[in-house]
Amino acid sequence: MSVDLASEKADVLVEALPYIRRFAGKIVVVKYGGNAMTASVGGPHGDLSTFAEDIVLLHAVGMKVVVVHGGGPQIGELLGRLGMESRFVDGLRVTDAETLDVARMVLVGKVNRDVVSAINVHGPLAVGMSGEDGSFLSASARSPELGFVGDVDDVDPSLICRLLDADLIPVVATIAVDAGGQSYNVNADTAAGAIAAALQAEKLVYLTDVEGIRSDPSDPATLLNTVTVDALDAMVADGSVREGMIPKVASCTNAVRKGVGHAHVLDGRVPHVLLLEFFTHSGIGTMVTQ
Amino acid sequence: MSVDLASEKADVLVEALPYIRRFAGKIVVVKYGGNAMTASVGGPHGDLSTFAEDIVLLHAVGMKVVVVHGGGPQIGELLGRLGMESRFVDGLRVTDAETLDVARMVLVGKVNRDVVSAINVHGPLAVGMSGEDGSFLSASARSPELGFVGDVDDVDPSLICRLLDADLIPVVATIAVDAGGQSYNVNADTAAGAIAAALQAEKLVYLTDVEGIRSDPSDPATLLNTVTVDALDAMVADGSVREGMIPKVASCTNAVRKGVGHAHVLDGRVPHVLLLEFFTHSGIGTMVTQ
Amino acid sequence: MSVDLASEKADVLVEALPYIRRFAGKIVVVKYGGNAMTASVGGPHGDLSTFAEDIVLLHAVGMKVVVVHGGGPQIGELLGRLGMESRFVDGLRVTDAETLDVARMVLVGKVNRDVVSAINVHGPLAVGMSGEDGSFLSASARSPELGFVGDVDDVDPSLICRLLDADLIPVVATIAVDAGGQSYNVNADTAAGAIAAALQAEKLVYLTDVEGIRSDPSDPATLLNTVTVDALDAMVADGSVREGMIPKVASCTNAVRKGVGHAHVLDGRVPHVLLLEFFTHSGIGTMVTQ
Amino acid sequence: MSVDLASEKADVLVEALPYIRRFAGKIVVVKYGGNAMTASVGGPHGDLSTFAEDIVLLHAVGMKVVVVHGGGPQIGELLGRLGMESRFVDGLRVTDAETLDVARMVLVGKVNRDVVSAINVHGPLAVGMSGEDGSFLSASARSPELGFVGDVDDVDPSLICRLLDADLIPVVATIAVDAGGQSYNVNADTAAGAIAAALQAEKLVYLTDVEGIRSDPSDPATLLNTVTVDALDAMVADGSVREGMIPKVASCTNAVRKGVGHAHVLDGRVPHVLLLEFFTHSGIGTMVTQ
Amino acid sequence: MSVDLASEKADVLVEALPYIRRFAGKIVVVKYGGNAMTASVGGPHGDLSTFAEDIVLLHAVGMKVVVVHGGGPQIGELLGRLGMESRFVDGLRVTDAETLDVARMVLVGKVNRDVVSAINVHGPLAVGMSGEDGSFLSASARSPELGFVGDVDDVDPSLICRLLDADLIPVVATIAVDAGGQSYNVNADTAAGAIAAALQAEKLVYLTDVEGIRSDPSDPATLLNTVTVDALDAMVADGSVREGMIPKVASCTNAVRKGVGHAHVLDGRVPHVLLLEFFTHSGIGTMVTQ
Amino acid sequence: MSVDLASEKADVLVEALPYIRRFAGKIVVVKYGGNAMTASVGGPHGDLSTFAEDIVLLHAVGMKVVVVHGGGPQIGELLGRLGMESRFVDGLRVTDAETLDVARMVLVGKVNRDVVSAINVHGPLAVGMSGEDGSFLSASARSPELGFVGDVDDVDPSLICRLLDADLIPVVATIAVDAGGQSYNVNADTAAGAIAAALQAEKLVYLTDVEGIRSDPSDPATLLNTVTVDALDAMVADGSVREGMIPKVASCTNAVRKGVGHAHVLDGRVPHVLLLEFFTHSGIGTMVTQ
Repeated sequence: MSVDLASEKADVLVEALPYIRRFAGKIVVVKYGGNAMTASVGGPHGDLSTFAEDIVLLHAVGMKVVVVHGGGPQIGELLGRLGMESRFVDGLRVTDAETLDVARMVLVGKVNRDVVSAINVHGPLAVGMSGEDGSFLSASARSPELGFVGDVDDVDPSLICRLLDADLIPVVATIAVDAGGQSYNVNADTAAGAIAAALQAEKLVYLTDVEGIRSDPSDPATLLNTVTVDALDAMVADGSVREGMIPKVASCTNAVRKGVGHAHVLDGRVPHVLLLEFFTHSGIGTMVTQ
Repeated sequence: MSVDLASEKADVLVEALPYIRRFAGKIVVVKYGGNAMTASVGGPHGDLSTFAEDIVLLHAVGMKVVVVHGGGPQIGELLGRLGMESRFVDGLRVTDAETLDVARMVLVGKVNRDVVSAINVHGPLAVGMSGEDGSFLSASARSPELGFVGDVDDVDPSLICRLLDADLIPVVATIAVDAGGQSYNVNADTAAGAIAAALQAEKLVYLTDVEGIRSDPSDPATLLNTVTVDALDAMVADGSVREGMIPKVASCTNAVRKGVGHAHVLDGRVPHVLLLEFFTHSGIGTMVTQ
Repeated sequence: MSVDLASEKADVLVEALPYIRRFAGKIVVVKYGGNAMTASVGGPHGDLSTFAEDIVLLHAVGMKVVVVHGGGPQIGELLGRLGMESRFVDGLRVTDAETLDVARMVLVGKVNRDVVSAINVHGPLAVGMSGEDGSFLSASARSPELGFVGDVDDVDPSLICRLLDADLIPVVATIAVDAGGQSYNVNADTAAGAIAAALQAEKLVYLTDVEGIRSDPSDPATLLNTVTVDALDAMVADGSVREGMIPKVASCTNAVRKGVGHAHVLDGRVPHVLLLEFFTHSGIGTMVTQ
Repeated sequence: MSVDLASEKADVLVEALPYIRRFAGKIVVVKYGGNAMTASVGGPHGDLSTFAEDIVLLHAVGMKVVVVHGGGPQIGELLGRLGMESRFVDGLRVTDAETLDVARMVLVGKVNRDVVSAINVHGPLAVGMSGEDGSFLSASARSPELGFVGDVDDVDPSLICRLLDADLIPVVATIAVDAGGQSYNVNADTAAGAIAAALQAEKLVYLTDVEGIRSDPSDPATLLNTVTVDALDAMVADGSVREGMIPKVASCTNAVRKGVGHAHVLDGRVPHVLLLEFFTHSGIGTMVTQ
Repeated sequence: MSVDLASEKADVLVEALPYIRRFAGKIVVVKYGGNAMTASVGGPHGDLSTFAEDIVLLHAVGMKVVVVHGGGPQIGELLGRLGMESRFVDGLRVTDAETLDVARMVLVGKVNRDVVSAINVHGPLAVGMSGEDGSFLSASARSPELGFVGDVDDVDPSLICRLLDADLIPVVATIAVDAGGQSYNVNADTAAGAIAAALQAEKLVYLTDVEGIRSDPSDPATLLNTVTVDALDAMVADGSVREGMIPKVASCTNAVRKGVGHAHVLDGRVPHVLLLEFFTHSGIGTMVTQ
Repeated sequence: MSVDLASEKADVLVEALPYIRRFAGKIVVVKYGGNAMTASVGGPHGDLSTFAEDIVLLHAVGMKVVVVHGGGPQIGELLGRLGMESRFVDGLRVTDAETLDVARMVLVGKVNRDVVSAINVHGPLAVGMSGEDGSFLSASARSPELGFVGDVDDVDPSLICRLLDADLIPVVATIAVDAGGQSYNVNADTAAGAIAAALQAEKLVYLTDVEGIRSDPSDPATLLNTVTVDALDAMVADGSVREGMIPKVASCTNAVRKGVGHAHVLDGRVPHVLLLEFFTHSGIGTMVTQ
């Protein structure tokens, strides 16, 4: 190793080790989007195997990692192959029993399995779950006309905690149940926030396909490094936060207000973005603070 | 309560309580077939909700219950809906990547979920798993021409044990993985036996649609109450055990030889057959002993 | 097993198992009378060996059982053989030092031993105790003229708890002590109630030679299935509860008010009455509730 | 305090403290004779209250003390009052069922209670037991003609250990049981030795009314300070050990050979003889060594 | 042993054992002066080896002993050998960096080692420490002109507790540190009091070369056996307590007010004075009470 | 952060994290030389504060670090100031009682304190010890003519383990004791190896002022990256290893043969050499393997 290289590496290590120490044993909930996966091979979102490697590295240095994933595109694809047409209300897919069955098969039996497998290439670490397991995600119907689209009412963190204590990585498909045993499809962004709050996680991270939150969505130069929950509320109110970013932002402020240390909106297209955010001074993307 | 009824009830209790004591804390692995479920409503196999009730009752009195299920008919049905035709070799479905994807979706995302839900109507007890979770079921390909049809090589019981220790009921879909992360569909009867052996279970139970094992398959009067593993070997050798019963019988003898207390082939059509077998003197069906 | 018999047995088990689960690990204090034992062989109270069998079965399915017994008739008998005449005040035997010695010998050295032995035929489970052991029952004199007849002041539950934690069955003779080391004979019905309260038992049971509590003592048709503590108070006040039933009833209401789950007055003459009361829907005898 | 007195006291303490340290947490079994108690008031054996004080002091400095007692004279007295004549064979009382009942009442219900009470004046420390409790002393009949006179076959130390771990002082009446639940009266000297061996006690102590073991029983000048088990065997063989001393000596050699640290025959008439033996250099009485 | 000697020894033991019991497991902090050691061989303070023996005996009977020592004379000696002259302000040595280095070498590297060695002749019990270890003694400068003379601000008892829990004897040299890592020499009397308070010790003992505290320092007949903290305050105010006794007395009252059971000023010249004070009724020296 | 910088940092982290995981919880013994400290300010060995920072960082990411130090130059300096001349035999200082006193004061009271303080600037982590504490280093005299120069006979690791378990960093001055309580000065290189072996450390590291071990000491190009213990033996035998390197090399081979994972000879002059060696692929200096 050349003296220069040694010095550079030493600098990175001296910078990173205190963060590694600080986050050891802490819980982090990472929301990984369904879009990311479909686009993963050679695409703009980073790929599943790099994501899995980061998750395994975070776990390796003692963090307790929970992955929450969605799977909208994949559900749409199977519905298409089965010739089942969807009706939409306010942009939400009306979910009848048969559609729910398909959604559940895809989320639990396909997307969840793919994430679990990608992680387990590195060792027997990941355990797939849905909110039906031990009924840990409780939900109720959002509105009669939407069918089995649910809102999360409650999270029982004990099963996830048990897996984390066993040094495992829970990977959660966001199907929830009500007291009568009926299943619901719930929004994965919202579920991730509720899970982070129930676990009193140190960090809640959304991996997206943007650089972070901008005070002016149309101006890349207005990327925010840190932003408070109150400031975010104001930005939602004045329309600076829009569309798909809204449930993420709402979950971030919600979770931080309920005790989560920090929430992060990161650019999933940057390789190893999780390591850079957690283990360097400058970080990357937007951090939401109290 | 009349004196006669009181006396009858007291007799059943006096008979049952010592068994309940003996089996408290013991592990039982129950194989529940895919056929049973499709036929369940009003059909000859007893129905899923009665089965779930028995599982919950066994759990209630302190047994540690693991459910293993298949799902052949349900896989066939979805393949049909998707217009995917299967090729068979020696009666086994050739399983290419796409077929495996469908099988995994159905087993993990549909059948497994239905069993979990049926149990969880009684409380947050069941946790669905596949052998990919924590890579607990290792397999390798049976033969190149069959594709992703696997044979179980090894079972790591630690994840299941952890769930049992948490007073939960693991429900296992029999997808397995190899060291490289490739998934395989494995025979559920065989997997149940391997899991029971790895757990050193007290009991391994197959719920079938026959009364038990007969020394002469065509003669109901030859139903065996108990049979030794050596006697079963002889019956396989001389052809008295046939067809679909062969993998069950092989798994029974295998499991008992590896330390499982007893294996049972029971008639799933008798309501509450599990309770009757475990908690009465005379039992029901066939018990395989060392 | 015939289909009908199987179905009947299954019904009893389905009925019983949830109760067995509910009471596992719970404490039950059973008061067993001295009368029951003298009359036991072929007599109307059920016999000691059936009682012991029930106690062992309750223990087998995980209940923590404490037996409290009296022994009035047996004390009288030895006093008679020794030619010691008793003087009575308000129906209570005046107990001088010598009489106390005899009472203690009989209760601790004879009756207690017989109950312990009857249980231990089934295994090394029972441990005899008196309130002098670890001074766990504290008492003071009721009145100077009665001599060493005491009223229970306090119960230290730690020694009993230790034995219960060791999976043993404490059998208690109701001799108590004061701070100076003086022993007293105390009423066994009252002591049983005080012990149940100190242990925060789930159940306190009196085995008697009547069917239960009647709203009209002279009319068997007025047997009460359940009764509240307030209703019982009223019945004592209006004279519907009389004589020997009074200390039992007072102990029941006292114990339930101090946190015991339920108190029961059962007919000890019905074989296996404890099992029927605990493990069937309809129960038997009278249950006292908050 | 004068300088001389201070110096004397300091010398005793410097001498005693290392012994106190050495014996802390060690188990000592003390056999206390029935004779000692009857003669206790103003009599030659020291009295029960001084004995109890020593037991409490040994316990106070961390020793785990087990008291084993006899009660021959007290049994004889009650038999006399009841007009029951005893027949003797080879100096042993023939024990029929009724005699056993009396012996049990006296040992468990009278003598045991008196020792427990004398100790508990100092605090709730002593717990009375007989070998029937948890069936911890197993015996079988010595000979048909002696009736229910038993020989100890086995000691289950777990119940005593549990009480010692709870910082309590077990006081044992030597009634034993066989597998069928039949009780027997067993020799207390022998039982004490068997209990000490089962507990792997540090010390086994017999409190007697002689100064110790003499090589010539008729010559006080031949008192032995220490003696090996082999030398004792020789003394029994040549007749130097006689009569009532024989079961004590046999129990001492037996216990030491089975792992008890030392056995001691002490003069119970010397006040605080236990403290002097344990906590001074020179000791007192006879110590039996490997 | 003669009967008289036996009786005398027994009396001392009966007197001592309850104290031994009472103090077992309790923490005692003993301040041992630097003067004592220089004078120790044949001198008036008792010697180091007798002191060490007492410490080991207290430890042997279960007390948790912490030794705190000074070393003024020894520091002065090395400064002299190195030709370093000290300047004094108000009787306190001005301590520059080089003087602190010498003081630290002597206290930690010489005096502390000698105490540790004297104790460890009896076994591997003593562990030397200074307040720099784990930064357990925090201090700040008393005044700029005194240099590195510090006042104790805080004591973190966790490291000492850990050593006590490991059955070791911490021996403390009173060097303290501030948050910036600067070391200070602190008064050992004061430090002992602060450590005793932080440990919530049962006893704080100062070994001195006087008999105790006198109400009139010039009159030996006015030696106080016990004195309250309020009375001591009054004596300081009216000048009855003088000079070198003042920091000891202030530490005693301070410690007792903060929860230390009792403080003692003892005459270190009396052999085994610690044993006599702790384990006899009359005690010796002066005991300070609430 | 620029994309390039992010990518570089990510690469270092991806490289380092698996090592950090692998070494978490593992014990490393680091020998730090007395030379290093005297030369530390601006000198060629790296300085004490950078060394301390590395130790704290290793500790931060979960390694259990033990520092062993020498102090030859500092001892020589104080002897000089005191006008004490040393006599040398075979290059070893003859150590009489007074010289030992000085050596002990310097090692324990000066050098050890400086290392402890440098670490504790980062938090209350370091605890200074010498082998006299709990007598954990046993030694005997090397030869009569050398006086109190000792060879390590035995290491009792329990005290160090206890401190490591308390998440502390033991800093060891290499004074040892014999059974009689006599202290000895022992070679710090040898002591470090013996301590590493007793702790079954994962790594033993010597920080030196050379780049590592060369197969030809005069040729920098022959620096060895890894070398086996057998190869090192051969190099000692043929003279390729010389002088001051010999005790280090002997300790390395000894320790590795006794179970230490790897031994390392590193260049203490390279800043953060410990981090580079442990957490990068290529390492630095020479690693000694089985």
